[in-house]
Amino acid sequence: MTELPTFGAGIWHFATYKDRYATDGYGPEVGLLEQIDRAGAVGDLSVVDLNYPFVGFDGTLDDVRAALERNGLRAIAITPEIYTRDFVKGSLTHPDPAVRKQALDLLHEATGVAKELGCDYVKLWPGQDGWDYPFQVDYHDAWQLALDGLTELVSAHPEIKFVIEYKPREPRIKIIFPSVARTLLGIEKIGLPNLGILLDFGHSLYGQETPADAAQLAIDYGRLFAIDVNDNLRGWDDDMVVGSVHLIETFEFFHTLRKNNWQGVWQLDQFPFREDSVQAARQAITFLKGVHRALDVLDVEALAAAQARHDALAAQRIVQRALLPNLLDD
Amino acid sequence: MTELPTFGAGIWHFATYKDRYATDGYGPEVGLLEQIDRAGAVGDLSVVDLNYPFVGFDGTLDDVRAALERNGLRAIAITPEIYTRDFVKGSLTHPDPAVRKQALDLLHEATGVAKELGCDYVKLWPGQDGWDYPFQVDYHDAWQLALDGLTELVSAHPEIKFVIEYKPREPRIKIIFPSVARTLLGIEKIGLPNLGILLDFGHSLYGQETPADAAQLAIDYGRLFAIDVNDNLRGWDDDMVVGSVHLIETFEFFHTLRKNNWQGVWQLDQFPFREDSVQAARQAITFLKGVHRALDVLDVEALAAAQARHDALAAQRIVQRALLPNLLDD
Amino acid sequence: MTELPTFGAGIWHFATYKDRYATDGYGPEVGLLEQIDRAGAVGDLSVVDLNYPFVGFDGTLDDVRAALERNGLRAIAITPEIYTRDFVKGSLTHPDPAVRKQALDLLHEATGVAKELGCDYVKLWPGQDGWDYPFQVDYHDAWQLALDGLTELVSAHPEIKFVIEYKPREPRIKIIFPSVARTLLGIEKIGLPNLGILLDFGHSLYGQETPADAAQLAIDYGRLFAIDVNDNLRGWDDDMVVGSVHLIETFEFFHTLRKNNWQGVWQLDQFPFREDSVQAARQAITFLKGVHRALDVLDVEALAAAQARHDALAAQRIVQRALLPNLLDD
Amino acid sequence: MTELPTFGAGIWHFATYKDRYATDGYGPEVGLLEQIDRAGAVGDLSVVDLNYPFVGFDGTLDDVRAALERNGLRAIAITPEIYTRDFVKGSLTHPDPAVRKQALDLLHEATGVAKELGCDYVKLWPGQDGWDYPFQVDYHDAWQLALDGLTELVSAHPEIKFVIEYKPREPRIKIIFPSVARTLLGIEKIGLPNLGILLDFGHSLYGQETPADAAQLAIDYGRLFAIDVNDNLRGWDDDMVVGSVHLIETFEFFHTLRKNNWQGVWQLDQFPFREDSVQAARQAITFLKGVHRALDVLDVEALAAAQARHDALAAQRIVQRALLPNLLDD
Repeated sequence: MTELPTFGAGIWHFATYKDRYATDGYGPEVGLLEQIDRAGAVGDLSVVDLNYPFVGFDGTLDDVRAALERNGLRAIAITPEIYTRDFVKGSLTHPDPAVRKQALDLLHEATGVAKELGCDYVKLWPGQDGWDYPFQVDYHDAWQLALDGLTELVSAHPEIKFVIEYKPREPRIKIIFPSVARTLLGIEKIGLPNLGILLDFGHSLYGQETPADAAQLAIDYGRLFAIDVNDNLRGWDDDMVVGSVHLIETFEFFHTLRKNNWQGVWQLDQFPFREDSVQAARQAITFLKGVHRALDVLDVEALAAAQARHDALAAQRIVQRALLPNLLDD
Repeated sequence: MTELPTFGAGIWHFATYKDRYATDGYGPEVGLLEQIDRAGAVGDLSVVDLNYPFVGFDGTLDDVRAALERNGLRAIAITPEIYTRDFVKGSLTHPDPAVRKQALDLLHEATGVAKELGCDYVKLWPGQDGWDYPFQVDYHDAWQLALDGLTELVSAHPEIKFVIEYKPREPRIKIIFPSVARTLLGIEKIGLPNLGILLDFGHSLYGQETPADAAQLAIDYGRLFAIDVNDNLRGWDDDMVVGSVHLIETFEFFHTLRKNNWQGVWQLDQFPFREDSVQAARQAITFLKGVHRALDVLDVEALAAAQARHDALAAQRIVQRALLPNLLDD
Repeated sequence: MTELPTFGAGIWHFATYKDRYATDGYGPEVGLLEQIDRAGAVGDLSVVDLNYPFVGFDGTLDDVRAALERNGLRAIAITPEIYTRDFVKGSLTHPDPAVRKQALDLLHEATGVAKELGCDYVKLWPGQDGWDYPFQVDYHDAWQLALDGLTELVSAHPEIKFVIEYKPREPRIKIIFPSVARTLLGIEKIGLPNLGILLDFGHSLYGQETPADAAQLAIDYGRLFAIDVNDNLRGWDDDMVVGSVHLIETFEFFHTLRKNNWQGVWQLDQFPFREDSVQAARQAITFLKGVHRALDVLDVEALAAAQARHDALAAQRIVQRALLPNLLDD
Repeated sequence: MTELPTFGAGIWHFATYKDRYATDGYGPEVGLLEQIDRAGAVGDLSVVDLNYPFVGFDGTLDDVRAALERNGLRAIAITPEIYTRDFVKGSLTHPDPAVRKQALDLLHEATGVAKELGCDYVKLWPGQDGWDYPFQVDYHDAWQLALDGLTELVSAHPEIKFVIEYKPREPRIKIIFPSVARTLLGIEKIGLPNLGILLDFGHSLYGQETPADAAQLAIDYGRLFAIDVNDNLRGWDDDMVVGSVHLIETFEFFHTLRKNNWQGVWQLDQFPFREDSVQAARQAITFLKGVHRALDVLDVEALAAAQARHDALAAQRIVQRALLPNLLDD
C-alpha cells in the first residue's frame, strides 16, 4: 500500500454549535484546549486549523502550543473570524471603511499568529461578504473591494500562503466567492503567488460543481493549496461525515488529486451537531483510509482508456471493482 | 376598499439572531418586553406569536400582558420551544421516552399559558424531529411517535387549537412534517378537530410546493388554521421581507385565501438578520396592504374564465393589470 | 443467500430518445419488437412494462406476445401514453371535457389490453397534468378533476390494479401528483382498493423525500404496489443507472422493502440516452444483486438497536460493514 | 422617455417542440419561413437568431432573406446545431477526433452563412459538451479540447464575433461552460478579442448566480456581447415568459445594463410549449417596455446611495416606487 496521507481537521469539528433555533447550543461549550484534546483523541489526526481569536480562551499562545504538542498535533492554518458580530455585513467588502480596516487589522494580527505557530497558510472564509436582497449592493464595487482588500493583505505577507474557501451561500444568502471559477478569476486578477484556494468538497457539491472537476481546474491554475472534506445532500452545506452519502464522488475527488500528484493534507470539515465528535472523525478517517486503499487497486490505465472514450459504463465497472468488489461477486 | 386584514408577527421578528458562525449574535440581545415594544412601534400589528418559555425573562405573565396592552397587541399564539438544547435529537419523536415526556410536559405547560393569555392556538414547530443521515431512524416508528405524541397533547386540550408548522428541513436535515400533504395525512389519521396547519409561505415555496395550491388543499380539508408570510430564493428558508422576490406568487396566495373567504391573520415570519426589524415589518405591511388593494381591483371573473381554460397568458394579463398597471401603460 | 427478486424494466429503457434539442433523436428509432428483444438480451429480466399505444408498431397483440415469449418475458404492466400531443395540457385534468373523455377512452382501452396480456397493473403517469405558471389553474378544480377521473377509471375495472407514479415535475413544471403524501391523500379520498402507488426511487430523491421513508409510508397505507429504480443528482429526474451515485440510499430503500416483507418486482426505469441500453441494464442488475447479497449479511438486529437510539454513527458502521467491507479492512 | 431598445428573439421561439415524453411534438411542425412570419407578426421584433442548418427547409438563403425582409427582420445571429444526433456525446469536446472535425466543419460553414446574412455574431451553445456520470471524463482533457476547438474556430474568423451561451446543464447533466465565471476563465485563457458571452437570464438564475452580478462581471471583462431573457422557477431552465415570476431581478438585470451603458438587443429565449408563441412574445415585450419605462423613473442617485450603505430596505423602497407605485399608495 502507498503511504497514507496526512489527516487533519478544523478544530471547530470538536466544538459544540449554535444555530438560530438552538441558541443555547447543541451541548455545553467546549473550550479551546479541550477541543485540541479531543482532536488528539481521534488518534489519526496530525494537523488542525485553528479559529482566531481564540474565543473564550484566556491562556497564552504557549498554552495552545503545549496542548497541540501533547496531542501530537501541529497548527496547519489559522482561520480568522471575519464572520462574527462586527462583520455580519461584511469584512473586506463592508460598506463602512472603518469596519474594513478593522477586518484587515484582525487579518494581519491573525497572520502574525499563524506565522508564530508555523502554519502553512491563513484561511480566508468571507461568509458574510456578499448580499441578501436584490438591489442591495453595487456588484462592481463589492467585487472591487474584495480584490483590493485581498491584495493589501496578501501582498503584505509574501512569506505565508493565503487560501480563499469559496462557498455559494450561508450565512450570507449570496457570498462574493461562490465557486471555484469565480475565485480563480479573482486570484488571477490579483496576481500574487501566495494566494490560492481551499476547496471544500461539500461546498463544491452543493454549488452544482463536480468536485473532481473543480479540483482539476484549481490544480491546472496552480492554485489548489488545501482541501476540506465532508458530505451533504446537495441542497445545503450539511457538513455531514465523509462518505455518508457521496462515496463515488468522494472517490473520484481523491482519484483526481492522486492523478495530479497533489500532496496536501486530507482535512475534515464536519459539523457533528448531534454526534460524538471524536467518533465522527474516526469514522470519517476509517472511510478515507479505505478510499486511499481503493485508489491503490484502481485500474488507472483501464480507467483512462474508458475516459478517453467518455465511456461512462466502462468507467463505472472499473470503479466498482475497486470500491465495491464484494458487491460484484457472484 | 374592502376592510384591511389583521396583521401579526412572530415576536422573534423583533429579536436578534445567532447562527453557527456569528455565535455572538447579529446584535445585542433584545429582551422580551423590548421585543414587544418594537412590535408595537411598527404601528400596524395587532397580534403577536410568543415563544415559550420566555427565555431570559424573569418577569411575570402580568408584565407580559401589560407590555402587550400598552402596545395595542394581543397574543394570538404561543410557540413552545421544543427545538432547543434538550430537544436537539427530537421532542415528541425523541428516542428517549424521558425526553419525550419532558417535551410533552413543556407543551402542556405552554398550552396552559396560551389559555391564560387568551390565545387562539398553540403552534407546534417540530424542527428537530426528523433525521440527518441515511439509516438513522426507523421511519415507521418515528412517524408513529409523532402521531401518538400529538394525539396525547391535542386531545387533552379540546378548548384550544393546535397548529403544525411544516417545513422540509432546518435545523434537522429532514423534518418529520415536511409538506402540506404529509401533515394533512397525519392530521387526518389523528382525527381531532382542533389540530390544523400553519402554512408558512416560504416553507411551501422552498419545499417545491405552489403555496396557493398548498393553501387550497389545507382549506379543502378544513385545516388551514393560520399562515405566515415571508420570502426566499427557493433554496432555503431565508425568511426575507415579504414581497422582496415573489410578488406574483404572494399575490396568488392571498387571492386564493380571499376566494375561499379565509378570514385569518396575515402574519409575518421574517428574520431581518442585518436589517432594522421595525422597518422590515413596516415595509412588509406596506406591501401587503398593496396586495390587499390589488385584490380589490383584480378582475376575478375574467381570471376564473381564463383559469377554466388553463390559459396562462390571459391569466397573466389580468394579474398584471391589477398588480402592475403602470408597467402596462403606453 | 436468499432467493433473488424478480427483475423488470420499462420497455422504453431499450428505446432511443428525443428531447427539445436533439429532436432527431439520440439514435435511430428502435421498434417495439426490437425493444423487447433487447430486454431479452439482458439476461436477467423477467417482466417488462409496455407503453400503449404501441407507437409505430403495426403488428398484432399476438406478435407482441410472441416476442415476449421468445425472450422469456411477461408484461407486468401497461403504461398508457396520456402525455403525448393530444394531452400536453393534461389528460384527466384537461380543461376541455372532450379531451378528458379522450383520455379516459384511451385509459379504458389500455386497461383492456393490460387484461388481455395478463398484466398485474396499469400504470398512470400524469406528467402533463398540472400547471406551469402562477394563476394558470384553479387548484381546487384541477385536483377534483384528477380524483373524479381516477374514480371513474379505477372503479370500472375492479379486477386489475392501477398505480399512480408520482413525480414533482417534467414535462409539466408542476405535476398534480408530486409526492408520496399528496398521492396517498388522493388515493385515500378515492377509497378504492385497487388504486395504489408506483414509487420511482429517483422521483422521490429528486422531490426532497427520503425514498425509504416514502416507501415505508406507502406500505403503512397498504398502497405500495410497485417500484422503479434509477439514480440522479437530486436536481432532476436524470434516470441514470442504478447505483451510479446514491448507493447508500438505494441500499436503505431495499432494506426497508425487505424489512416490511415487500415482495414486488425490482424494476428499472433508466434512460440511457448515450449508453448501450442492454449494458446499462446489466450493470444495474449486477449492482442490485450486490444489494440483495449485502442485505443478507446486514446485521439487522444491531441496526434496529442503533435506530432505536437514532444513533447515526453506529448505523453507518453497520451498513458499511455490509456494503463496503473491503474499505474497512486494515 | 428614453428611446426604446431593439427587441429580438431566437427563431425557435416560434417553432413547436418535442421532449422525451411528447415525442410527437407539442403541435404540428412549423417550417422556417412560417417561424419568421410569426416573428414578424409580433410587431415589435427587429432581429432574430436563426438555427443552422435550416432543418426541414429546402429553400435558398435568398428565400430566408426575403422572408426576413418582408417581416422587417434582420438576422442578428446564427446558432449552429451542435447538439443534435451526431453530437450527443459532444461537439468540440467529443471523444472522437472525427466528430470534433465534423463539428468544426459545421461551425465554419455556419459562420459563413452568418457572414452572408450580415449577422453580428455566431452563437455557440455546447449543450452536449460535458458529462453525465462520475468518472466519465478526464476533466483536464475535456476542458482543453473545448479551449482548443474554440481557439481554432474563433481565430479563423476575426471579422465576426462569437458568443458562448453558458448553462449549468440540459441536455447534458453537466455542461462544460456552466457559469459566467468559468466561461470568462476560458475566454481569458483563449485571449481572442472576438469571443464573448451571451448571458441568458434564466440560465444564470437557475445556476445559482445573481443575473445582475453575472452581467456586471462580464461587462467588467468587456465580454458581454449579447443577452437573452426569459424566466423560470430557479430549479430548471423553464424558458417561461419574461416577467412571469422574477420581476424584481429582471428589473435589476436591466438596471445593471443601463448603468453600464450597455447597448445591445433585448432578446427573448422563451419556449412557449403550450402557449401561442406570438402572444407569448407580445406579453414579454409589453413587460419589457414597462421595465424600460420604470428605469426612466428609477431614482438612481438615491439607489446608489442606498447601495453604498448596503441598505437593502432603502433600496427596496426606491425600487418599489419605480416598479409598483400603485401598490404603495394609501
